[in-house]
Amino acid sequence: MREVFQQELREVQERLVEIAELVAEAIERATQAFNESDVALAEKVIEDDAKIDELAVSLDELAINILARQQPVARDLRIVVSALRISASLERMGDMSEHIAQLSRYRFPDKVVPKSLRPTFAEMGALDVMIARKLVTLLRSEDVRVAEEIRNDDDKVDALHLSVFDKVLGATWNGEAVDTVDATLASRYHERFADHAVSIAKKVQYLATGDWIPADA
Amino acid sequence: MREVFQQELREVQERLVEIAELVAEAIERATQAFNESDVALAEKVIEDDAKIDELAVSLDELAINILARQQPVARDLRIVVSALRISASLERMGDMSEHIAQLSRYRFPDKVVPKSLRPTFAEMGALDVMIARKLVTLLRSEDVRVAEEIRNDDDKVDALHLSVFDKVLGATWNGEAVDTVDATLASRYHERFADHAVSIAKKVQYLATGDWIPADA
Repeated sequence: MREVFQQELREVQERLVEIAELVAEAIERATQAFNESDVALAEKVIEDDAKIDELAVSLDELAINILARQQPVARDLRIVVSALRISASLERMGDMSEHIAQLSRYRFPDKVVPKSLRPTFAEMGALDVMIARKLVTLLRSEDVRVAEEIRNDDDKVDALHLSVFDKVLGATWNGEAVDTVDATLASRYHERFADHAVSIAKKVQYLATGDWIPADA
Repeated sequence: MREVFQQELREVQERLVEIAELVAEAIERATQAFNESDVALAEKVIEDDAKIDELAVSLDELAINILARQQPVARDLRIVVSALRISASLERMGDMSEHIAQLSRYRFPDKVVPKSLRPTFAEMGALDVMIARKLVTLLRSEDVRVAEEIRNDDDKVDALHLSVFDKVLGATWNGEAVDTVDATLASRYHERFADHAVSIAKKVQYLATGDWIPADA
């Protein structure tokens, strides 16, 4: 029984890694679509989000099945409950990637943000892609140093997020209202994307160190 | 054992109702603070959000404890897992209320949005307050007709959310960039608030009808 359970936990872990890989691909493509006004790529991200949703639902079913059949307690129980939460965060990260892709589709053939903001968004996008890849590594290896790195990367995303507002609300901003709306939303999506990654990183960290996982972490 | 379990499920339900009541109070106050530039009320909402977070964490602990001790299966297991998800959604609804309050604190003593948008935001706020109150009723009564009402109310919030963009991107908009940013964010927070309520309503609905709960519902 114990061996079957360990095998099932590995299956859960592998599925989380698989979803995280799709999320990394989604944010990478969404960022490229956003930076280069690539509408075909944007549409691919939007279309592929259904696959992430589907895998998340199916992972949840597996986790609930494991709870019902294996009746885990203590740390084992917390691992399975954490998997349910991690899948919910990954699903939202897919949604954020989709929203970024939607912005670039709406504005096509224009770029989403004016020239002065493009380097900032390129940097935010690159950070989110890096964070998503580190998440794949973290879920695979459970190496808490990677979790720490993700938390540091998130601080950089937060700083860039604030810098977008500084720019948009500064004296030199001459964007149209549509630019202001798009910059506000895109920045918020990137920030939330990184937040969800931190929330997952904390869960892995707490599981590794034995501390428990606040719901809002 | 069965009786103890039923008693514990009632305890979970009561705690969800308690959190939902605090969320309803939070969105009501945040909306009033936003409409009337009431900075003291805004600060109260921001301060009180910690209580919602705390109750959500403590409810999660209870739910995990129940899973460990009672080892529920089938529908009982799904009820407990749903409680974990509902508490996460309520916690986020508290955050959205806090964000709306923060916007009104930042802009004080100015109002957050220009005159032309105030009726729209007053309406969105009133709908979110109504939705939050219906959620309290729904969690208390599990009356699926209330769940259906919440879904309809959410459609109205979505329509208002779109109308904000129509206005901000329309020819007559003469707001500053700060107005555009605030309107975009406030509208997004209201929309997300209602989305989380729908997500909870669907879970209650599915539990009542016996269907299962997609993770992204």
